Amino acid sequence: MFRTAITEMFGIKYPIICGAMMWLCKPGFCAAISNAGGMGNLTAGNYETEAEFRAAIEETRKLTDKPFMVNITLLPSLRITPEHHQTYIRVCAEEKVAGIEFSGTPVDKASGMEAIELLKKAGVKLFHKVGAVRHAIHAERVGYDGVYAAGIEEGGHPLNDDVTTMILTPRIADSVNIPVVTVGGIADGRSVAAALVLGAQGVMMASRFIATQECEVHDNIKQELLRRQEYETTMFGKSIGLQGRALKSRVIEEVCAIEERGGGFEELIPLLSGQRIKDAWETGDVDYAPLMVGQSIGLIQDIPTCRELLDRMAKEAVEHLKKAGRLVQ
Amino acid sequence: MFRTAITEMFGIKYPIICGAMMWLCKPGFCAAISNAGGMGNLTAGNYETEAEFRAAIEETRKLTDKPFMVNITLLPSLRITPEHHQTYIRVCAEEKVAGIEFSGTPVDKASGMEAIELLKKAGVKLFHKVGAVRHAIHAERVGYDGVYAAGIEEGGHPLNDDVTTMILTPRIADSVNIPVVTVGGIADGRSVAAALVLGAQGVMMASRFIATQECEVHDNIKQELLRRQEYETTMFGKSIGLQGRALKSRVIEEVCAIEERGGGFEELIPLLSGQRIKDAWETGDVDYAPLMVGQSIGLIQDIPTCRELLDRMAKEAVEHLKKAGRLVQ
Repeated sequence: MFRTAITEMFGIKYPIICGAMMWLCKPGFCAAISNAGGMGNLTAGNYETEAEFRAAIEETRKLTDKPFMVNITLLPSLRITPEHHQTYIRVCAEEKVAGIEFSGTPVDKASGMEAIELLKKAGVKLFHKVGAVRHAIHAERVGYDGVYAAGIEEGGHPLNDDVTTMILTPRIADSVNIPVVTVGGIADGRSVAAALVLGAQGVMMASRFIATQECEVHDNIKQELLRRQEYETTMFGKSIGLQGRALKSRVIEEVCAIEERGGGFEELIPLLSGQRIKDAWETGDVDYAPLMVGQSIGLIQDIPTCRELLDRMAKEAVEHLKKAGRLVQ
Repeated sequence: MFRTAITEMFGIKYPIICGAMMWLCKPGFCAAISNAGGMGNLTAGNYETEAEFRAAIEETRKLTDKPFMVNITLLPSLRITPEHHQTYIRVCAEEKVAGIEFSGTPVDKASGMEAIELLKKAGVKLFHKVGAVRHAIHAERVGYDGVYAAGIEEGGHPLNDDVTTMILTPRIADSVNIPVVTVGGIADGRSVAAALVLGAQGVMMASRFIATQECEVHDNIKQELLRRQEYETTMFGKSIGLQGRALKSRVIEEVCAIEERGGGFEELIPLLSGQRIKDAWETGDVDYAPLMVGQSIGLIQDIPTCRELLDRMAKEAVEHLKKAGRLVQ
């Protein structure tokens, strides 16, 4: 039985949380993960109106009575504006969602301390995804309830400090008193066990959850994750000030070529648009849009249900801790 | 008490091995680590003649009756030639050293299968530092006794697959039957515990050993490692086909600037020469030469003796495994 600061905070079975994924983290998938004992994710950026976002929360609650996280990404975006952020925050407070995973700009800087006060008054637990000790300390200082420590191996947008999970998780765990959740390199029970040893109270993973029965993505994408290895992701976007990690593909080659010859934002945007990613998830064309997965894809070998995955990971975590324990007796 | 494939293979107390460091890994320091229960390193590249190399082995043996590793780096070098490599290998066989840490080209390709046969006949245990599953499989196939799985966070020359320890160690541990030693991100007992959980039978570290009483380096260097953080290393050398990780410094800025404007090998070599590193270790000028340390410098807080360090790490490893175990009971 898992009993960590994260399982206790939310009253959940496993301290395994799904990370935000645009277009994928919707009610059905979110509820499947929460029902399996982890914590599903509802990615607010999927919804452009208050009514749609609120309906998604309600739909999720029809599918599960377990808690789930809402992701709000506070990064510059052509589609999602600061007004959207304010709406998401207000709705989360009104709906008293269990927790929010913020990423990008800290919410106090993006939306003001009053946003934090509003959410805390509503009992919403606040987490921020950080890639540096200094950002974790800031989050603790302004009232966050926990941080996700995101190593450079994660998919998506790791901080350009480029620090890996092996060092980042213990450094952050030593630097703050709020719970730390490891992100980056997590895909099985062995990595969960390692994260707990490094000082985390839980893990967040996204790529691994794509290869589950319940993830509503074209089957080509799931099959591709089984085929591809840990060295088949790459970094891009440094030239426009927002680095990302994605699966190596024709479109990512094109992106890197544009960056190499000094092409800018205007040229890159059409290749990186959210609509393009939405299309790729639906058509299964892995070469059409950047699929922002992490190095942990090397650890993905099958497509279980969320319940099978989480039960197995929990069992593996216990086994690997015992196995390592026997080496030091 | 540690009891892993590595402690059993060499009859040592702790499965903690010192990585190669040019000019630093010499008899006194090497013996101090072996006497403390780990495994010191004698870096062959320090010695340009057979007599000097043999004398160094003899000197180490006067200082310790415990086993130690010899490093032989099989990379193109202006100073150390394939003839040197042959000499090192022959002397190691004649002297029946406990083990060799090879890095760079696999020894079967650099020096022929007869080198492996010669060494194995002499009872020398052979390890190769690898950054990819395919290289680990090759090492096992040609008769190596173990592999060092070196994540991208390591100092020195990590493979340009760029895979981090969190994923590389378990992937390699699952892919070969010979023991795996984790390299990259190791500097304390917590990281040792995490490596064991990930499937390693031991760890290798170098940066952490610089900040010990016995390391014969200028005190400025040790103090600098205490001051600098995990985000203060950077990659360089991709443009000349041999990437490296080093402490951020004025010389590394210069190197990166030369690479950025397309300057080549000829321009870079004077800044990267072994003599320059030797001078920097001696004068304590961290801005004069690339100091090839890893992200684990963020975990270094003091300058203990080797014995204090290893005893403490062993204790911490046990504690952190127990602590994590309590989270899953």
